Amino acid sequence: MARPVTVTVAVDATGADLGPAEVAAGAAIAAAQGVRVLLFGPAEAIGEVADGVEVVDAPISIAKAPDPVIAVRSTPDASIVQAARAVGDGRAHALVAGGSTGAALAAGLFNIKRASGIFRPALAIPIPVPGKPVTLVDVGANAESRPEHLVQFAFMGAALAQVVLGIEQPRVALLSNGEEAVKGTPLVLEAHEKLAGSPLRFVGNVEGLDITSGVADVIVTDGFTGNVALKVAEGVSQTMLEAVRAAATSSIRAKLGGALLRPSLRGLRDQLDPEGPGGAYLLGLRQLGVVPHGRFTRFGWSQAILLAARGVSGDVVGRTHAALEAAGALRAKGPAASSGDLTTVPSQP
Amino acid sequence: MARPVTVTVAVDATGADLGPAEVAAGAAIAAAQGVRVLLFGPAEAIGEVADGVEVVDAPISIAKAPDPVIAVRSTPDASIVQAARAVGDGRAHALVAGGSTGAALAAGLFNIKRASGIFRPALAIPIPVPGKPVTLVDVGANAESRPEHLVQFAFMGAALAQVVLGIEQPRVALLSNGEEAVKGTPLVLEAHEKLAGSPLRFVGNVEGLDITSGVADVIVTDGFTGNVALKVAEGVSQTMLEAVRAAATSSIRAKLGGALLRPSLRGLRDQLDPEGPGGAYLLGLRQLGVVPHGRFTRFGWSQAILLAARGVSGDVVGRTHAALEAAGALRAKGPAASSGDLTTVPSQP
Repeated sequence: MARPVTVTVAVDATGADLGPAEVAAGAAIAAAQGVRVLLFGPAEAIGEVADGVEVVDAPISIAKAPDPVIAVRSTPDASIVQAARAVGDGRAHALVAGGSTGAALAAGLFNIKRASGIFRPALAIPIPVPGKPVTLVDVGANAESRPEHLVQFAFMGAALAQVVLGIEQPRVALLSNGEEAVKGTPLVLEAHEKLAGSPLRFVGNVEGLDITSGVADVIVTDGFTGNVALKVAEGVSQTMLEAVRAAATSSIRAKLGGALLRPSLRGLRDQLDPEGPGGAYLLGLRQLGVVPHGRFTRFGWSQAILLAARGVSGDVVGRTHAALEAAGALRAKGPAASSGDLTTVPSQP
Repeated sequence: MARPVTVTVAVDATGADLGPAEVAAGAAIAAAQGVRVLLFGPAEAIGEVADGVEVVDAPISIAKAPDPVIAVRSTPDASIVQAARAVGDGRAHALVAGGSTGAALAAGLFNIKRASGIFRPALAIPIPVPGKPVTLVDVGANAESRPEHLVQFAFMGAALAQVVLGIEQPRVALLSNGEEAVKGTPLVLEAHEKLAGSPLRFVGNVEGLDITSGVADVIVTDGFTGNVALKVAEGVSQTMLEAVRAAATSSIRAKLGGALLRPSLRGLRDQLDPEGPGGAYLLGLRQLGVVPHGRFTRFGWSQAILLAARGVSGDVVGRTHAALEAAGALRAKGPAASSGDLTTVPSQP
């Protein structure tokens, strides 16, 4: 499949806490690096845009809708639905839609559609552990999974790590409650067996501790466990940073120490910055999707667009398909994707 | 049931990384506060002991056995098995056995036995979140659970929080991938319904972020998810502390700042100290068990013994039974506990 010379990314401008103009500023950064951006949102709020960015006036936002699935179905003019449709139609090669993971997932499934041979789309999130980044998949697209789903998540995550994160031979692991192959739920045991026999660089089961230990580049799990693991990590990380900050203001001596330490801690904060990897990746559709966090600044939005474009150039979707086909792990041909695939999704992973 | 005036705790001295003498030192601290300790381990390594501590020479240790269930079954003279038998026989009122959770669970199930009406024992761990402690249950006694198990875990955890941690009306929550009652696996949905109709102070579903947010005193989950959540929290917490330490040695300026900040950070470290709550609690047996971490010092061991004694005085087991009975949540009478209950257990939660 010939890759496009100029990659076009469809971006929903309505999911940012900082507003559509912040997304446009991110789009400008990406456009300056050669990516073409179709920006869907209220033209008035977006204002002037840079060269390479084309605004499609789409003033209807469902970013705050209580039920994203219903909102996507019932609002064909919503900016996120229009952006996803542009990808489905071939006017753009990838989707960037932030704020609501549920809305991005629903808009993607209905308009971009599931890739051929894929059971379920999955959400993968590259976690910025200092010096030991790791990608966790699935972090919440599916509340329940079967072993063959986990196997596909492993292949999807490995292709993402190769193409977008530049890891040549990603080490893939399965999240469990013990390192031994005999530990885990029946789901984990069966997925372990299938992965051990796959051509992936499978390093076996890992425990929760290994999210931060650097023993694997991709950690595979079901969406329920992945969502819990991701949010525990976020909560503990935030709590620790707040506690250190509180300790650094608890006395005059501590305040002085904190002031001296600040430049070094700022480096740490930058390493932990979730904006670097661009957000969560929506895998298993016919094209790639990226879901930046609603609180991202223009930097995060630009990263999401640039990394989506890198995923297109490196053909994450085609590579995933080829690897799954070679491994005999594609789903047998059957009925097309139905909304039944849209199980409970988190509002924000 | 009349509570004993002097509580006797059976302690296995062989599970500490620092050796049996460190456990004996912890026992001495507890004995000085009126607890009687039966200390099982190699008398030679234990040496002289304090008043109130009685050594039972039991030189055989299975603390490092690769398969704790097999080791417990095949080694009736092992110190941990003898300690558990003392509790089963009524010579002691509670068990403290550290190092291997799997061995403690197996020794407890075989020798103390499951409490009447309880489906499965569970491991509960009080997590020392600064200012917002929370007890997570189950953290790994069971790889798989049914909704009625989670309901019992909730009652067990609530009784533990009341008696041992002194929380009058513990807020009980269910761990899920979203706060809404409709979010989660079928297991979570069904357990939610049962808990919502129970007399517990049930505050609904919480997410992984809430392990550190202080919205609940007891968070209930299956042993697989609980084990992953606990270890992710441990891993992230350790990694953050190490990163702060590295930042504080990255330059001369940072080193000076770190030195000034050290007393305040020491306070934080003390608040995060896992030794304070004494370890993991083994609930659902006829008597209480506590599993200190292998790396605990004498302080942690003394806490484990003192809190076990508090659990006996406050009748955690009897209260749990009464509350489950009143709620109609006891298991119908059936065959006694079998080793089939010993599903995969982690070597150390």
